[in-house]
Amino acid sequence: MSYQSIIHLSLDKPTRAVCVVGVEITLDLSGCAPHKCTSFTISGSPRVLVNIPKMVPVITNEEGTNTQLLLCDSMDVLMKMTAPSLDIGEDKVSVAYYLPDEEVPMATAELFLTGLEVSLDVDINRRGQVEVTSDIWAKKNWVWGPRGWGAILLVNCNPDGKDQDVDKTKVFLSKEIKNLSQMVLSVQGPSSVLKNYRLILYTSKEEAKKGRVYRPQAGKSDTFDLVLGPGWHTYTFAPLESPLKETLYVEATEFPSANFSGLISYSVSLVEESENTLIPETLMYKDTVVFRVAPCIFIPSTQVPLEIYLCRELQVHGFVNTVIELSEKSNSQVASVYEDPNRLGRWLQDEMAFCYTQAPHKTISLVFDTPRVSNLEDFPMKYSLSPGIGYVTQLTEDGKVITMDSIGNLMVSPPVKVRGREYPLGRILIGGSFYPSKEGRDMRKDLRDFLYAQQVQAPVELYSDWLMIGHVDEFMCFIPTQVKSESDKGFRLLLASPRSCYQLFQEKQKEGYGDMALFEEVREDQLLSNGREVTTINQLLDNDIMRKQNDYVEKCINLNRDILKRELGLLERDIIHIPQLFCLEQLSNVPPTEQTEKLYARPYFPNLLQLIVMGKNLGIPKPFGPQIKGTCCLEERICQLLEPLGFKCTFINDFDCYMTEIGDFRACANIRRVPFAFKWWKIVL
Amino acid sequence: MSYQSIIHLSLDKPTRAVCVVGVEITLDLSGCAPHKCTSFTISGSPRVLVNIPKMVPVITNEEGTNTQLLLCDSMDVLMKMTAPSLDIGEDKVSVAYYLPDEEVPMATAELFLTGLEVSLDVDINRRGQVEVTSDIWAKKNWVWGPRGWGAILLVNCNPDGKDQDVDKTKVFLSKEIKNLSQMVLSVQGPSSVLKNYRLILYTSKEEAKKGRVYRPQAGKSDTFDLVLGPGWHTYTFAPLESPLKETLYVEATEFPSANFSGLISYSVSLVEESENTLIPETLMYKDTVVFRVAPCIFIPSTQVPLEIYLCRELQVHGFVNTVIELSEKSNSQVASVYEDPNRLGRWLQDEMAFCYTQAPHKTISLVFDTPRVSNLEDFPMKYSLSPGIGYVTQLTEDGKVITMDSIGNLMVSPPVKVRGREYPLGRILIGGSFYPSKEGRDMRKDLRDFLYAQQVQAPVELYSDWLMIGHVDEFMCFIPTQVKSESDKGFRLLLASPRSCYQLFQEKQKEGYGDMALFEEVREDQLLSNGREVTTINQLLDNDIMRKQNDYVEKCINLNRDILKRELGLLERDIIHIPQLFCLEQLSNVPPTEQTEKLYARPYFPNLLQLIVMGKNLGIPKPFGPQIKGTCCLEERICQLLEPLGFKCTFINDFDCYMTEIGDFRACANIRRVPFAFKWWKIVL
Repeated sequence: MSYQSIIHLSLDKPTRAVCVVGVEITLDLSGCAPHKCTSFTISGSPRVLVNIPKMVPVITNEEGTNTQLLLCDSMDVLMKMTAPSLDIGEDKVSVAYYLPDEEVPMATAELFLTGLEVSLDVDINRRGQVEVTSDIWAKKNWVWGPRGWGAILLVNCNPDGKDQDVDKTKVFLSKEIKNLSQMVLSVQGPSSVLKNYRLILYTSKEEAKKGRVYRPQAGKSDTFDLVLGPGWHTYTFAPLESPLKETLYVEATEFPSANFSGLISYSVSLVEESENTLIPETLMYKDTVVFRVAPCIFIPSTQVPLEIYLCRELQVHGFVNTVIELSEKSNSQVASVYEDPNRLGRWLQDEMAFCYTQAPHKTISLVFDTPRVSNLEDFPMKYSLSPGIGYVTQLTEDGKVITMDSIGNLMVSPPVKVRGREYPLGRILIGGSFYPSKEGRDMRKDLRDFLYAQQVQAPVELYSDWLMIGHVDEFMCFIPTQVKSESDKGFRLLLASPRSCYQLFQEKQKEGYGDMALFEEVREDQLLSNGREVTTINQLLDNDIMRKQNDYVEKCINLNRDILKRELGLLERDIIHIPQLFCLEQLSNVPPTEQTEKLYARPYFPNLLQLIVMGKNLGIPKPFGPQIKGTCCLEERICQLLEPLGFKCTFINDFDCYMTEIGDFRACANIRRVPFAFKWWKIVL
Repeated sequence: MSYQSIIHLSLDKPTRAVCVVGVEITLDLSGCAPHKCTSFTISGSPRVLVNIPKMVPVITNEEGTNTQLLLCDSMDVLMKMTAPSLDIGEDKVSVAYYLPDEEVPMATAELFLTGLEVSLDVDINRRGQVEVTSDIWAKKNWVWGPRGWGAILLVNCNPDGKDQDVDKTKVFLSKEIKNLSQMVLSVQGPSSVLKNYRLILYTSKEEAKKGRVYRPQAGKSDTFDLVLGPGWHTYTFAPLESPLKETLYVEATEFPSANFSGLISYSVSLVEESENTLIPETLMYKDTVVFRVAPCIFIPSTQVPLEIYLCRELQVHGFVNTVIELSEKSNSQVASVYEDPNRLGRWLQDEMAFCYTQAPHKTISLVFDTPRVSNLEDFPMKYSLSPGIGYVTQLTEDGKVITMDSIGNLMVSPPVKVRGREYPLGRILIGGSFYPSKEGRDMRKDLRDFLYAQQVQAPVELYSDWLMIGHVDEFMCFIPTQVKSESDKGFRLLLASPRSCYQLFQEKQKEGYGDMALFEEVREDQLLSNGREVTTINQLLDNDIMRKQNDYVEKCINLNRDILKRELGLLERDIIHIPQLFCLEQLSNVPPTEQTEKLYARPYFPNLLQLIVMGKNLGIPKPFGPQIKGTCCLEERICQLLEPLGFKCTFINDFDCYMTEIGDFRACANIRRVPFAFKWWKIVL
């Protein structure tokens, strides 16, 4: 009995073979055919399927069954078994050979078969359940796209979990086990045959580091043995005494990265033990499945908000109160986060992003953390997360973190279509320096590589190094609109525009309001501590340096505008210019040794682009602009621009929140949003 | 003057702007339009192209020129310059605004333009010459396939060259410089404007390690400065005093690998120097080109032979003489290689493979070396190569080399089509252990990763660890056939078949030749030193152990047969079974500590599968089989199988060459073949 890809029949004695269910085997009929025989009939037991492509019937008998077929050399007569045999040699194929024009066979060849089922199966069709297939080629090839296939693994992002790799036994809550992907191993056939075989489950050493395979302990529903994982790349099952059918549970340990494609293969090999020291053991069959680790997907501000995380202890009461009000309007939950008052909640938006990962069987919300504090254990948000939300962190190799690595420098566009290519999950936008110089600041390579490696939100690099904080979210923002016509993309890009601010102030000057001033409502001490003073429209328009500096800012934004239009396929009508002034200053908050001559831009008044988008409700920093007829002319202009699109603008009255510490403080709220309806595995790359 | 992706016109004073040739710029006409004006006309100087998608004509005047167009908000009025200006503000756009039903304009806005050309260009269309394009999106995206684009770099594989990275100046022969890819940098425009700009050529630090950019020294045709390369990722040009047009020369330093995708981008940035310490320098324009490093492509035995490398000093005269004879028949050159007689030329086939790399401008033959000797400098083949042939080596990290890493374990299939996917450059076939065990031998990971990283010959892994040498070339071979019908693939796969050898011997026994013996023509001492003895057909057929061992070998080959059929899309008629017997022995040539119980297969008689394929002329090891009616029945069977396909079989009479030292000696010739006609960049991945 042997593993066969081809079986040669014989007239001398019956042939015996062990076949794996579903595997197509070539039958060599012509090799033993008696001289002068020109046709044959073939019949098999019910579990045997015979397939003869291009067969030529010679004689069809009356019942239409057992047709005599033309015998020729190098025929492709294919056979496969459809189910395992219950006993050895129980299944059978018979071939009878005929002389020309004879109806009685001249000779007969017999083949006795034992069918074994050996199969490793996963959710290959991405329907959330394991499906058995015998297409071993498909199982080991993972294909993207709407007509693609291949199973998916989720990364274990449990906030408290780095200790999995120590224990070889693990207790899972029934809720937790639902995050894992199932892999069903089935070995069926007569026990008397199975006992000659050894079963090995394995992967490569490198892939073993990227995933963990658990096997339920016999008789216990919640306790599992780690059979493959970091340090364990092969597992041999106990000798097979009877058929085996087991569900294994698989999880990934890390997201795709520059050094990890995201693909993990697991194989099972059935090895026939040797009965004789002069013959080695024989590989009988091998089945391989490949998983792809689900990427970490970032969510644009245009998605519906679900939950808002907020530090209530903060001194920025204006901000906190307005955000709570906004969350009520948009029916979002508010989750309170405890934070060390010294840090003022700054990490919430700047260091953390809500994202998600998804498999057909489960979607998991995550916070993605680009740590700015060295000691992660002190990190409070992990303990404030709603149940079921995972936690991912991207540690730096050298422990250094720069401002360019913060989440504020990572934005996601809504879904776009560009030059015929669809980006149904949008594109990631990250800021950088764009050309080498001694002061140039860029996102660190491993974080950038991580973002590229997720593949499904192809990053676009923007120029943000001209800003003091260096973050793209200081000059742009996306807001969701209702799609009313085919040409409407369902969103608008808001871009900071010094030019349109100057234009507005010029209009107001012409209308006779040149003496009206910015910052009149702000307390003297607040202005003083932030390097601002009450300034009239006339004074601003007369300030030649400020004008030139804003021309420079405008150029920097225009460069990005050009890239955004090209890489996101935007038209002019998709862009709204938000009046915003900047001023240039030397880098603050750095040690004197790192101080450079170069000037960087920071918002002159609270940055209107740093708005909180809660669907149609927008929380916009109150700019404290010139009051004209009792209304701030900047607020009025914003409303003119946004209200016709159906937005409700709430201005957040909190100068401190937006201006203190050079804008580094910014919004102290972080919003969890609805994942995309589009499934990432359906993307066409 | 500023870089603009949008230009806002003004009625107050003419607008001035610097534009980069080919860059589409939005003109904001409506922003300054006088109240109540409803239409406009627009005209530009000859170097200016205006494009108004979806324009609505209001009045067309008699000459059909200068049509009045409907003025509306958020129009996409696009403009681009087609050539650089000769002087500042020399080019012009005028817009006139009209009240309803008026033919005399109410107001006019003027725009004075200075066109600059800034362009980095390469052989983007893969025609072997640099072509200028203003499609900056296309330049930075490399696309595979017949309709793809993107330039290509060749790796410098000069056998004598690892010293390039020391000198910043290099002298190239005019022949050598033709291997490099050209990159043309052009900066054109009025000198009085250009002098305000700084020009920087750069790449990332990581990419800089993978390529070298050379700039010709002024006035010297053969001397070049290294401007970018390992350790040099940015280069600032001397201040621009006049227009610049220079051809730079680029080469890669390494092939794609697990850690290198093969893509290298180079960018040029034009930076406007600051005139004022309160305004930073401004990035004016950036142009990026991306190259892909050409892969290392292996050549199957079915390609036409060009040159055969041979150690003539060898003691295996039978082999040497027959190979020279074969090369004459197939019109191939013979190149003599000096080799230390102690090594017996063993490295030639086992350690080296001829392959090639290709760009539209140049194809380079290479030897790919998987070193088994530690000291490369002593390696003679480097010095025996024909001029222009490159040399690539794959060093191991730990210096250890195992038999699985040899070239004999790396084969290439002819072009195939499988499940609708084309592999026009064939697929690489490598052998391994297939499941983990304590004795398992596999090709080392970095070499396997290297083969996968070349992308264009998607590897297939086969099971070869059952062989003593462990190489796939011991049980299979491809030979080229004439394509006579559509179903003919143009090649046959030869597979070793113990079964068909037994079948042949059984036939001969039945015919009464059971007393005829193998090895009768071989000298006693040759047999003795190789553990063989004269054996009759009857003795062989009675040897039950040998029969079982060959059944085992048959199973191992069948496993591969199954994979080959599936992964190369082969049918039965594409496979020819070559009678070959094996015997199982313990590993030899290893230190006693590495000795294991496991038995491995080695050919029982000179391996018929290790043939030399020279088109229709085949050099086949003489098997020294039983002489029946004056003819070796094995040779006779081989001829029966191959001659009808048009092959001429020459049997190489050299027992020592094929049997000494357990087959490790094997063929001492290496053949350089014609590269594929198909260009790798046209492949659809």
